[in-house]
Amino acid sequence: MAEVVESKEDENKKSGLQTIYVGTKPLIRYVMAAIALYLNERPNKLKIAARGRAISRAVDVAEVLRTLYLKGILDVEDVKIHTDRIEDKKSPGKTDRVSSMEILLRKKEEVLQRKQS
Amino acid sequence: MAEVVESKEDENKKSGLQTIYVGTKPLIRYVMAAIALYLNERPNKLKIAARGRAISRAVDVAEVLRTLYLKGILDVEDVKIHTDRIEDKKSPGKTDRVSSMEILLRKKEEVLQRKQS
Repeated sequence: MAEVVESKEDENKKSGLQTIYVGTKPLIRYVMAAIALYLNERPNKLKIAARGRAISRAVDVAEVLRTLYLKGILDVEDVKIHTDRIEDKKSPGKTDRVSSMEILLRKKEEVLQRKQS
Repeated sequence: MAEVVESKEDENKKSGLQTIYVGTKPLIRYVMAAIALYLNERPNKLKIAARGRAISRAVDVAEVLRTLYLKGILDVEDVKIHTDRIEDKKSPGKTDRVSSMEILLRKKEEVLQRKQS
């Protein structure tokens, strides 16, 4: 239905950064996906991304990881907000604005050092 | 009903930073409140804060200000996320966790310089 005109999603794909896109599923699904990703691939950085109303849930995902399941392992490095422009194919030329958010989680310094030693 | 046990709200009051708390009212109310604050007091910094589901709306408020009404004037300096602990008075000792967010907007460098000259 909607075509993305201007978005940060493509940049993520190029950077090869592991990204969890948060949508309308229950919170725990995204938390489990992030934990599985962490355990399988052990990335140093992990991105949680969302648009519109899912932004609140993305913050919940990041906070549950940071304070519960991956406590002491991951920390919030950066939070960015943007406005994406999405074109509605039903009415060409008209673009809708939707807020989006990216939360960058990274391994804590002490965890990175522990791995190296 | 609920008593805040651990929150960033008190810090904001101490710092004297102008803060808009976003809740369940329509988006435009908070946007207008922020614009009124900006026009009356001309602060260099402005904080948009929210908890739980209102977080998505807080991002909308910040993005509408940054890209529409105060375009070229304000920019996002920092976005912080936390977990607040709220005690339910009905069941003492039990604390609920709720995600919270703070978006710090500040005047762009060129706007600050224009004011000084």
